Amino acid sequence: MEKLKKYASVKDEDQFYHQGAVELLVFNFLLILTILTIWLFKKHRFRFLHETGGAMVYGLVMGLLIRYATKASNVENGTVYECEKLESGPSTLLLNITNQVYEYQYKREISHHNINGHQGNAMLQKMTFDPSIFFNILLPPIIFHAGYSLKKRHFFRNLGSILTYAFLGTAISCIVIGLIMYGFVKAMVHIGQLKAWEFHFTDCLFFGSLMSATDPVTVLAIFHELHVDTDLYTLLFGESVLNDAVAIVLTYSISIYSPKENPNAFDAAAFFQSVGNFLGIFAGSFAMGSSYAVVTHLTKFTKLCEFPMLETGLFFLLSWSAFLSAEAAGLTGIVAVLFCGVTQAHYTYNNLSSDSRMRTKELFEFMNFLAENVIFCYMGLALFTFQNHIFNPLFIFGAFVAVFIARACNIYPLSFLLNLARKQKIPRNFQHMMMFSGLRGAIAFALAIRDTGSQPKQMMFTTALLIVFFTVWVFGGGTTPMLTWLQIRVGVDPDEDLKGQAASQSASKLDKNTTKAESAWLFRVWYAFDHRYLKPILTHAGPPLTTTLPEWCNPVARLLTSPSAYGDQLKNEDTGYIINNDELSENYESSAHTLGPKQERTGCTQATGKEDICEGDLGLGTYELRLEHTSCQRQLNSLA
Amino acid sequence: MEKLKKYASVKDEDQFYHQGAVELLVFNFLLILTILTIWLFKKHRFRFLHETGGAMVYGLVMGLLIRYATKASNVENGTVYECEKLESGPSTLLLNITNQVYEYQYKREISHHNINGHQGNAMLQKMTFDPSIFFNILLPPIIFHAGYSLKKRHFFRNLGSILTYAFLGTAISCIVIGLIMYGFVKAMVHIGQLKAWEFHFTDCLFFGSLMSATDPVTVLAIFHELHVDTDLYTLLFGESVLNDAVAIVLTYSISIYSPKENPNAFDAAAFFQSVGNFLGIFAGSFAMGSSYAVVTHLTKFTKLCEFPMLETGLFFLLSWSAFLSAEAAGLTGIVAVLFCGVTQAHYTYNNLSSDSRMRTKELFEFMNFLAENVIFCYMGLALFTFQNHIFNPLFIFGAFVAVFIARACNIYPLSFLLNLARKQKIPRNFQHMMMFSGLRGAIAFALAIRDTGSQPKQMMFTTALLIVFFTVWVFGGGTTPMLTWLQIRVGVDPDEDLKGQAASQSASKLDKNTTKAESAWLFRVWYAFDHRYLKPILTHAGPPLTTTLPEWCNPVARLLTSPSAYGDQLKNEDTGYIINNDELSENYESSAHTLGPKQERTGCTQATGKEDICEGDLGLGTYELRLEHTSCQRQLNSLA
Repeated sequence: MEKLKKYASVKDEDQFYHQGAVELLVFNFLLILTILTIWLFKKHRFRFLHETGGAMVYGLVMGLLIRYATKASNVENGTVYECEKLESGPSTLLLNITNQVYEYQYKREISHHNINGHQGNAMLQKMTFDPSIFFNILLPPIIFHAGYSLKKRHFFRNLGSILTYAFLGTAISCIVIGLIMYGFVKAMVHIGQLKAWEFHFTDCLFFGSLMSATDPVTVLAIFHELHVDTDLYTLLFGESVLNDAVAIVLTYSISIYSPKENPNAFDAAAFFQSVGNFLGIFAGSFAMGSSYAVVTHLTKFTKLCEFPMLETGLFFLLSWSAFLSAEAAGLTGIVAVLFCGVTQAHYTYNNLSSDSRMRTKELFEFMNFLAENVIFCYMGLALFTFQNHIFNPLFIFGAFVAVFIARACNIYPLSFLLNLARKQKIPRNFQHMMMFSGLRGAIAFALAIRDTGSQPKQMMFTTALLIVFFTVWVFGGGTTPMLTWLQIRVGVDPDEDLKGQAASQSASKLDKNTTKAESAWLFRVWYAFDHRYLKPILTHAGPPLTTTLPEWCNPVARLLTSPSAYGDQLKNEDTGYIINNDELSENYESSAHTLGPKQERTGCTQATGKEDICEGDLGLGTYELRLEHTSCQRQLNSLA
Repeated sequence: MEKLKKYASVKDEDQFYHQGAVELLVFNFLLILTILTIWLFKKHRFRFLHETGGAMVYGLVMGLLIRYATKASNVENGTVYECEKLESGPSTLLLNITNQVYEYQYKREISHHNINGHQGNAMLQKMTFDPSIFFNILLPPIIFHAGYSLKKRHFFRNLGSILTYAFLGTAISCIVIGLIMYGFVKAMVHIGQLKAWEFHFTDCLFFGSLMSATDPVTVLAIFHELHVDTDLYTLLFGESVLNDAVAIVLTYSISIYSPKENPNAFDAAAFFQSVGNFLGIFAGSFAMGSSYAVVTHLTKFTKLCEFPMLETGLFFLLSWSAFLSAEAAGLTGIVAVLFCGVTQAHYTYNNLSSDSRMRTKELFEFMNFLAENVIFCYMGLALFTFQNHIFNPLFIFGAFVAVFIARACNIYPLSFLLNLARKQKIPRNFQHMMMFSGLRGAIAFALAIRDTGSQPKQMMFTTALLIVFFTVWVFGGGTTPMLTWLQIRVGVDPDEDLKGQAASQSASKLDKNTTKAESAWLFRVWYAFDHRYLKPILTHAGPPLTTTLPEWCNPVARLLTSPSAYGDQLKNEDTGYIINNDELSENYESSAHTLGPKQERTGCTQATGKEDICEGDLGLGTYELRLEHTSCQRQLNSLA
């Protein structure tokens, strides 16, 4: 007896010691393979399979291996125990088994027809990880990175169009998919594949909203590599970033839409409540994200930049907290972290030491890279390791049809409407390319896997997974041929692009016309406000508040203005596209004279970060690039 | 009915959507507080509370709040259900509750006297996270960082002493603690606090081994900041790094020690099997870690350095895989990742692009910082949130006594023995400081929390936690006064230190004597071998193999030698302390002439990385520092 117990405890311990290692190792192995493949592809300039597509292939193969090469280890697991004493499933269950009390934790509900089969395979079970890991750990860095690396100038130039595609387009897409799917569901009920009460119209809309989150990461990577036309890039990138946020909030609003009576009938009160929910959650999340970014700005007053490690740590933790706070408050973390990223890039970035700028950029880039590839690997794995798949050919066919029709109903009519107002039209070939770039990815998958408790949800998950596979491989792989076929110009330098436009006009009218036409008065007001008040308050950049605020505010203004703002008065102005040109050229001349010697004095807070501008383009214009270069050379001279 | 079900599912979903966010937010909040505190302390040069101590204080306060300010949310949870059908606890349980099948996952065994109480508080339960997270996610970056940032020159100078303290010292400590605790346990049995069959001598030894892992992170941080004598720093750092590895393997060996008959009697066969286990696991893990590092070296032949992101990713994943593979193979991941780190620093670092060098260094530094503070926060939390504490005053008192006696039995006798052999003695005040620096930290905690299934283990966990608190706060806080009191010199520059020694001898005898005396013949042989064969094979540095291998090997040698090795023949030699001085000064002269113009040519693979040397001191000697500086200036000139 004693011996037996000892043996059992040793065995338990042994298992315990190595718990989780094998599963993590599988992922590591897949990621290593993916990295080596990417390297091979990049080296040979092979663009038909993107890293994410490669990660999915490897995940698929590994899933196949795990499913069919490992055997069911624990026969006990297939058995279902009856429990009459309980009325609902508690989150924690204490069981007395042969005089020892064991604690069990609730995992999920299992549909009856999935109980046997591969239920007994412990490896399969372990490879299926908690969906909350996606939402709390893997998605935030991806979305934050998207916000943090948004090319602001081009983004604001196309803001109207991007917002239209993101809000109106996603709503159209959601409704179109919902309607088409409802048709298919009706047909399925008709031929007896489905029971009518299993699938409501709200479920169809739910599917529509989750399938509306586009994720053209593959396409954008190729665009970035080939330097495709910046406007097209910005339109696609901006749309996909904002559209994720919209789709997530939409999905959530629909999931809590609860009509009082018949779930198939239209309930106006419940509908407006859902719309209200949508707006409330979106606005709340936006406010939450921005306010966290504002908290981070307070680093302006600390001398934290003397310790780049602490600065980076604080930056990282506050950005993640924005996400978590929003989630904890019942809002949408993804939206919060997106706007937190945008705001951080706009303000906080200016307060960071040059060391921290590099560190945060590299850190988020790295985390984005890892998280993205883990998700795509996992998608590949999930096709074989997820145990509750329901493949329904009619539903899958319907979904494919619906997704493409919905994308068309989104892009073409909206582009037509936008072209009525835009001075610089969106050409036909851009529209086709945007139509083509309606890939589905991480967000659609994460939304679908979040809830796989009921049969309709499991059917949706399976279908969403197949659509992701198809779009990533087929459309992702076809990007380069498509670009050639549509004759979209490549090899465009974003800065050259703007300069070229400027040069084509007379020197004195530089950017004035296009800017006025494209940025609505709202944004000009916002920019002026931002430039005069927010930037000086929140960062070390901008004109000192003492000059922009009325005179009676001087005591407060002096307190809030960073000492370096006086010296740098004319340096960091982010004015290129809003204020008029006379002011701009004035700035250019005066700062060219004063910048050189100043650089050395300001030290820690006013880093040059020449290389930072190249990719992120965080708030500095073309002129400054030239200025920084000059000053860098001077610094090198003075160092030497 | 329909409505009710809808409501229930909405509620479930709602909970599900925000699952995990609150708990993560609590940790984020604690870490942010810790960072701000560290900054405040650093700014005011306040050294009586280290960041880890601060993290523990905040964790403690938060634990107190969670425990007493949140109320039990789910009354269902306190109930224990009988289950006659089951004979042992399966890892997954399927329950049929009112016609729906739910899946439950095994969490842990609960001792009978802990069933009620705070069992019902959901928040408390959620804050207690899976110990496998410590082992698989939080510890590896800490240990890898320790290995990666080992100051190699000083480490090898003191290798003999470090190995003695780490292996012999830990064994002594384990046995002394085990014996003393066995005495206390006997006393407890005598006065009726404990039943004899509950606590064997092996349990006492188990406790001894886990309490032998010292973690003077607080002390080392202060040493680093004050630039305390490098030999003392290296002795302490080296001891603590290796001693963790030894303690972990020892704990594991003891936990699988299973005497055939009476568990209290000595069983020679089982004992020798345990010793064999210890050696086997240690050697196996060492081999595993090093071989992963060798795999990484193959990056020498790829041109991966053109993509620093991929390079960093591969480096990170392979290092983590070393840990996971060792765990999956039943070895000790910590030992594997430690030696992987040491080997990576020695070889792979030389192959990395300068961008990747910075990235990997900063990444691991950052991960180390976060992981360390998370663990210490969690320790503070655990005092109030862990639900199975057993406070036994006699056991706790015994443990405190045992820990201090064991530390004394480790340091003083071993220092005496070492001083018989060492030319440069370990002075009395160094010994006292080492005695004083016997802090317990993350490893002891992680080992104790790994298994809290039985009552003796719970008692050990509680006691270990208290010892960690006491040593970190009292000894950690007392480091600065202790340094003053023991008159240990501070403000030493590690490079100056060596140069000073060199200068005090005649120029031609530079370092020759001390080196010969302190590095045993084994290491000289190893160094020669490493320098002539391993370095050229694995890195771009070192002399070309065509010169070191016999002539008939030339074809193979040419294949294996990096093209840049010919040019850099005399640059990256890591010879400072082993080969004789004539060769050294020759190198110095010749490379001083050839280095300048070469730097620019080698580009991607031969980065200068002047700033890298400052802290990590990764394989470059003092002379090279000077050379690099000259070359850097030249580069600046040439750029200007």
